Amino acid sequence: MLDGVHNDRIRCGRLRERIATAEEAAALIEDGMTVGMSGFTRAGEAKAVPMALAARARQHPLKITLMTGASLGNDLDKTLTEAHVLARRIPFQSDPALRRAINRGEVMFIDQHLSETVEMLRTRQLPRVDVAVIEAVAITENGGIVPTTSVGNSASFAILAEKVIVEINLSQPAELEGLHDIYIPTYRPNRMPIPVVTPESRVGLPFIPIPPEKIAAIVVTEKLDSSSTILDPDDDTRAIAGHLSEFLLHEVRAGRLDHTLQPLQAGIGTIANAVLHGFIDTPFHDLKMYSEVLQDSTFDLFDAGKLRFASGSSITLSERKYQEVLPRLAEYKPRLMLRPQEISNHPEVVRRLGLICINTALEFDIYGNVNSTHVGGTQMMNGIGGSGDFARNAYLSVFVTKSIAKHGAISSVVPMVSHVDHTEHDVDILVTEVGLADLRGLAPRERAATIIANCVHADYQPLMRDYFARASARGGHTPHVLEEALSWHVRLAETGRMA
Amino acid sequence: MLDGVHNDRIRCGRLRERIATAEEAAALIEDGMTVGMSGFTRAGEAKAVPMALAARARQHPLKITLMTGASLGNDLDKTLTEAHVLARRIPFQSDPALRRAINRGEVMFIDQHLSETVEMLRTRQLPRVDVAVIEAVAITENGGIVPTTSVGNSASFAILAEKVIVEINLSQPAELEGLHDIYIPTYRPNRMPIPVVTPESRVGLPFIPIPPEKIAAIVVTEKLDSSSTILDPDDDTRAIAGHLSEFLLHEVRAGRLDHTLQPLQAGIGTIANAVLHGFIDTPFHDLKMYSEVLQDSTFDLFDAGKLRFASGSSITLSERKYQEVLPRLAEYKPRLMLRPQEISNHPEVVRRLGLICINTALEFDIYGNVNSTHVGGTQMMNGIGGSGDFARNAYLSVFVTKSIAKHGAISSVVPMVSHVDHTEHDVDILVTEVGLADLRGLAPRERAATIIANCVHADYQPLMRDYFARASARGGHTPHVLEEALSWHVRLAETGRMA
Repeated sequence: MLDGVHNDRIRCGRLRERIATAEEAAALIEDGMTVGMSGFTRAGEAKAVPMALAARARQHPLKITLMTGASLGNDLDKTLTEAHVLARRIPFQSDPALRRAINRGEVMFIDQHLSETVEMLRTRQLPRVDVAVIEAVAITENGGIVPTTSVGNSASFAILAEKVIVEINLSQPAELEGLHDIYIPTYRPNRMPIPVVTPESRVGLPFIPIPPEKIAAIVVTEKLDSSSTILDPDDDTRAIAGHLSEFLLHEVRAGRLDHTLQPLQAGIGTIANAVLHGFIDTPFHDLKMYSEVLQDSTFDLFDAGKLRFASGSSITLSERKYQEVLPRLAEYKPRLMLRPQEISNHPEVVRRLGLICINTALEFDIYGNVNSTHVGGTQMMNGIGGSGDFARNAYLSVFVTKSIAKHGAISSVVPMVSHVDHTEHDVDILVTEVGLADLRGLAPRERAATIIANCVHADYQPLMRDYFARASARGGHTPHVLEEALSWHVRLAETGRMA
Repeated sequence: MLDGVHNDRIRCGRLRERIATAEEAAALIEDGMTVGMSGFTRAGEAKAVPMALAARARQHPLKITLMTGASLGNDLDKTLTEAHVLARRIPFQSDPALRRAINRGEVMFIDQHLSETVEMLRTRQLPRVDVAVIEAVAITENGGIVPTTSVGNSASFAILAEKVIVEINLSQPAELEGLHDIYIPTYRPNRMPIPVVTPESRVGLPFIPIPPEKIAAIVVTEKLDSSSTILDPDDDTRAIAGHLSEFLLHEVRAGRLDHTLQPLQAGIGTIANAVLHGFIDTPFHDLKMYSEVLQDSTFDLFDAGKLRFASGSSITLSERKYQEVLPRLAEYKPRLMLRPQEISNHPEVVRRLGLICINTALEFDIYGNVNSTHVGGTQMMNGIGGSGDFARNAYLSVFVTKSIAKHGAISSVVPMVSHVDHTEHDVDILVTEVGLADLRGLAPRERAATIIANCVHADYQPLMRDYFARASARGGHTPHVLEEALSWHVRLAETGRMA
């Protein structure tokens, strides 16, 4: 069986002699190296080599700088953290164990806009990638690497690395081949326009082109991607989706949009997924997505006949949806495309296409500044991800969150956010289950009035109105009682409740 | 004489009958209207009509929404503010009287990325421009408007407005014609790549193309632009320039840049101008600029043989430099280009060209977040301007400031900025006269260590080290003592000193 597999999956015959065990391949990674691994939103990560590396490190300690596309599945970041392999981690993560190590100051985490990492690598403003480890469904006749369920930063990692390890994952369906569009911008100072002009523009190759001699080892694996951890829509997320649909219908009536809207982007996670899912019950049709992660809702929208095309950098599904979608991949394939995250998130393309961008806030303040990353201003949650790539260049930049958390102990709307990831300049629309605030063309005092009226939970309304009244009396373009601005967060830390 | 002038400057014969007084033209502007006026960094603003409007408003009160490119000269914003004409002001200003009115909450100021205003107008997410008032050196045979010393938002204002008033300014040299490159992106959903691929790419027309019948009035003026208010380099700005040059030379030695660097952008004002001026005494050569405002330093660099080409959206000079440059305009012209601010600042082009962006911070914090706009977190200074368009998409995003202000009462480096315009994600290099912090590839705790060591004034070092030590002991990816994070600003407000 393995021979047949090799012929189909490793079509460049001379590379078959590079087949190795995960341990042998992991031996190419040495202490102090910078390693670029595939994996984006728990999809398509290299699975065997990092585990072998962790096993080795438990015997013979070593540290690496690990770069990926985004978050990894299969508890890889946990295992690597617990084996003390990670000195530095770039540009995103979402693992509880790694998060704790980051917040203890043990792992240096560089939280970057997801479109930027390879730009910095290419200009050698980040350390060179010594070894790339890329999951693939196949290697082509000429040594091209066909990624699996994500592209992420894999293409540039493979191109820029000195050595490449390929994990051929037999569990990833061969039908994934042909889904990818690998385009690498020409290097500065001779950069040409990126030719993507619609979500469905195909501008690159269906594989990562590298000289086959760079492939130092090939490991055959069979482990599945982890399924996503999103929760089903609930009353609050349905209310958020409802407010946004209603607003977009108003935009249609005002003649600013038609029922096909503009291409949609939605951030990872339960709320953004639920909001997209909510489009099923709207009169919008012939929608397109130009997003980073394609979640359950993308396929729900396909199945409901609402969606014409979806471009992303990964496919991350719940276990149930995975079972449904994978057997029907050939059916979805003409309407799907996976791109490098540099292209799925590229400011140039985001601005050109004019996306409606829906991302999740951890908290936002009465002036529209958004915190996406830091609990209490200090504790990293996951990272900014692609939200900054999208929000600044959006046709419409929407942030969503529930108005309260921890059964009301926390208000997601605060006088001043404890950390800013998205400034007031980059936020058009805020939505909680309470309602929607349209900030376009408003000055800060006007923004505060609409945010307080429309987004703040009833339990926090009096406190917030009191704050804003006292701040306004002091004056200023953006009124604050500076010594109280972060007092809600301080109170939470001290008493377990913001109010 | 006027007839000859009309023939040269108003070449579309049938438009000559539209010549009117400023008062007659201003009568086209009614209470409640949205007016788009030329003017960017005190250059090329319409001068007569707004004054006539203010005079009328003193007799017959009226309010308008005023949009411009950026700041206006000739005390226009002051005069309009004092005549209570301004209900809303978009997207930038730098006038003390207007600033006070904004901070009192009397004028609603919408502080926008300078590349975004016309994008929002075009999609009708801001109110439609009723009347555009555009300063011009000439009107072409077909009614095309040739701007003067700035382009700003003038092209889109004229294209989108119902009526256009043109101020033909006889003091603006006729040689300005041919300097402009007016390119308007195709409208979404059919937006094509913006074809600018080098600073000198000429992609548009030398005039603003509008149907001549939209020109409702032409006013002939003679008032000069205001000169810039920048100060000469001093020891501190020379030290800042020195640190940056030294760093860039290090980048050359490391093989990341060559001596022609990448195209340069520098924000408006004394420090950025001084830093650019400092390039005269470096081994860098054959430099190019792709910036928004071209200040004295641009022409100093031309005269020193250092600069090959400069693209901007305006020319704003000191009185002395103005007297030197204007008579030699024909000589500089082949190496100069003025573009709409949407294009000079366009994220797509900024990222493509890979700019080295040098902008001024009001204050920054130990993690590299930058406040460009709000004194004490509440009082608006000028606005974010183009700094966000540039910083996020830069090859290298540099922010400069003196380490202290008000003779040491204020530290420009603080534990936490009181307002965030540029997040840690968008800041690569920070420079004060003390030194330079290279933040690339560093995690927050590492950033803090290098910022404190290299940028903080000696007088504030002990206090800052104490803060960071206590914050670090509490833990977190971005350690803070939250209840003290803004205490320096609070102390300043209460005692007049941060320490």
